[in-house]
Amino acid sequence: MVDSDRPTATEQAEPPARVTIAEIAREAGVSVATVSKVLNGHSHVAEATREKIEALLEGHNYVRRRSRPTHTVGLIDLVINELDSPWSVEVVRGVEETTAQHGSGLVVTAVHGRPADTLRWLDNLTRRGSDGVILAVTALAKGQRRKVQDLGVPLVVVDPVGNPDPAIPSVGATNWHGGLAATQHLLELGHRRIGIVTGPDDVLSARARLDGYRAALESAGIGVDPRLEVRGDFHHETGFTGARQLLALPEPPTAIFASSDLQALGAYDAVRRAGLQVGRDISIVGFDDLPVAAWASPPLTTVRQPLSDMAAMAARIVLQGVDNVLTGGMHRLELATALVERESTGRPPTR
Amino acid sequence: MVDSDRPTATEQAEPPARVTIAEIAREAGVSVATVSKVLNGHSHVAEATREKIEALLEGHNYVRRRSRPTHTVGLIDLVINELDSPWSVEVVRGVEETTAQHGSGLVVTAVHGRPADTLRWLDNLTRRGSDGVILAVTALAKGQRRKVQDLGVPLVVVDPVGNPDPAIPSVGATNWHGGLAATQHLLELGHRRIGIVTGPDDVLSARARLDGYRAALESAGIGVDPRLEVRGDFHHETGFTGARQLLALPEPPTAIFASSDLQALGAYDAVRRAGLQVGRDISIVGFDDLPVAAWASPPLTTVRQPLSDMAAMAARIVLQGVDNVLTGGMHRLELATALVERESTGRPPTR
Repeated sequence: MVDSDRPTATEQAEPPARVTIAEIAREAGVSVATVSKVLNGHSHVAEATREKIEALLEGHNYVRRRSRPTHTVGLIDLVINELDSPWSVEVVRGVEETTAQHGSGLVVTAVHGRPADTLRWLDNLTRRGSDGVILAVTALAKGQRRKVQDLGVPLVVVDPVGNPDPAIPSVGATNWHGGLAATQHLLELGHRRIGIVTGPDDVLSARARLDGYRAALESAGIGVDPRLEVRGDFHHETGFTGARQLLALPEPPTAIFASSDLQALGAYDAVRRAGLQVGRDISIVGFDDLPVAAWASPPLTTVRQPLSDMAAMAARIVLQGVDNVLTGGMHRLELATALVERESTGRPPTR
Repeated sequence: MVDSDRPTATEQAEPPARVTIAEIAREAGVSVATVSKVLNGHSHVAEATREKIEALLEGHNYVRRRSRPTHTVGLIDLVINELDSPWSVEVVRGVEETTAQHGSGLVVTAVHGRPADTLRWLDNLTRRGSDGVILAVTALAKGQRRKVQDLGVPLVVVDPVGNPDPAIPSVGATNWHGGLAATQHLLELGHRRIGIVTGPDDVLSARARLDGYRAALESAGIGVDPRLEVRGDFHHETGFTGARQLLALPEPPTAIFASSDLQALGAYDAVRRAGLQVGRDISIVGFDDLPVAAWASPPLTTVRQPLSDMAAMAARIVLQGVDNVLTGGMHRLELATALVERESTGRPPTR
């Protein structure tokens, strides 16, 4: 897109005082192209130059004259199950950064697992149109998916639940590897009795983390003890109750893999209430590396999953088309996880 | 809006198997009105009935035939400075719940305090239209505000920064009272040396909390000690550095009012690293009551500000018009704050 810097005959008459890009460029002592770059959010402009140009744009009350070509709607939809956690804000942020760079608006909808909410969103979508739909840990019923496809709107899935349709592109993280890495870290510190609080059964990522945990134990020749596997739902409360259950065992674990950062924070509280200290008496590993992980006291050792990058990748796929982002007919992409060592893990206490 | 339950001649031919609302009502043994209520998200339907109807809607792949009347765009805009904190997700959630109930889509944009990002959003808004704009802790330059108003789009502000235009309706919290209540709570526990880590100078709510803190001290005949007032920016890092600075004073405070929950969590880490225990050796009060406050260990005593309610109120004002929500020509509304006592505050230690 090129910004015209003189109004054309077809445009509305404007007050004569309105500044053009060329005038801004002259005042700033830069090229028109540089001003355009700042307006379009390119990063290859020196910070000082960008600030100078932005100050001039603001000082002159610059308002762009022409909008983008209208063959697209200019909107991307993100449909998420709940907007109630630090997890969801990472996804919203990742999608928003990418859509904003493309000049698209981002429509955010929470469906709470309720079909009526999904129908209301579909109504609204039909009315205003959309250039693409990103589903985050939520699924559409078959008829709803057909409706979206009938409208010609591409679909992408982030962090799939249930049994995702292999025909729909999806972006996830290497959850199995993450579960493996978390457990191996604890094994390397010398732990032999390692508990897990799992995520919900119907979420694929939760199942993959559990399998990675089991694989690490079995590779170490330790084997799986079902009493050390407690069911959770990724939220704080089940981290608390799950850890309390593990700590009450006749032979409690010396370390817990909490499957999510929020469950890890719940486990912190169970440990503190048992009169123990996280990192010294019992080691805890989370999963996600949300901002809260670094804010915990002690800061949480966790498996980073690049949520905002996953969300940004999904946005690129709907904006540019899957074949322009992924090559070789690939429809499933897993971004790498990485262990982040902080202060919640250490050697097991000597008895 | 009434859903027609038979397709009209002007509608596309559909597979004959599509279910109508009347059929769903018959199968569920309820009235058509009850099915409509579920579809439109009304709350006055018994949980069991709602679940039964939703299961039938899903089982039959029900897809609504007509969309809403088109005299509105069907979109509301939320413009926020950053999408990087648990604070922002509360605002997004509050607005989304309200817009979804009204059948409107919510477009979320983060402008990062950058004029170019605001211009890009205005471009997109001009292209697709909007029924209203909610600004959360961010401001528009005069020319940008005029542009929105020229488009006939109503504006509402949540938690204003700087010097807000009194002609634009705004929703906030009783920040001054909250600062007063936090400090009075500490005074009642017996604290006499109470520090504060403030928020940013240009944010009105931060200034109001500081003034509430000072008013409580002065009412108690204690007076203000400038060494006990440390500047922060509402984020974790300045809570940590601010608390460390306070703890290093020759005569350190026995309690800290952290001005935000994230700053309180930063203060937790400073206290722990000083070998002290929150709640026993030093009391900490936050502000916001984000979910992280209850997840902290020990759980954080804080001042609840009803962020999602504030955001929902702003959404109601843009959807229904200020004069239909607020009476008497009122353009400024402050929702009440309330102290939430948890375990991070206690009596001062005896020396």
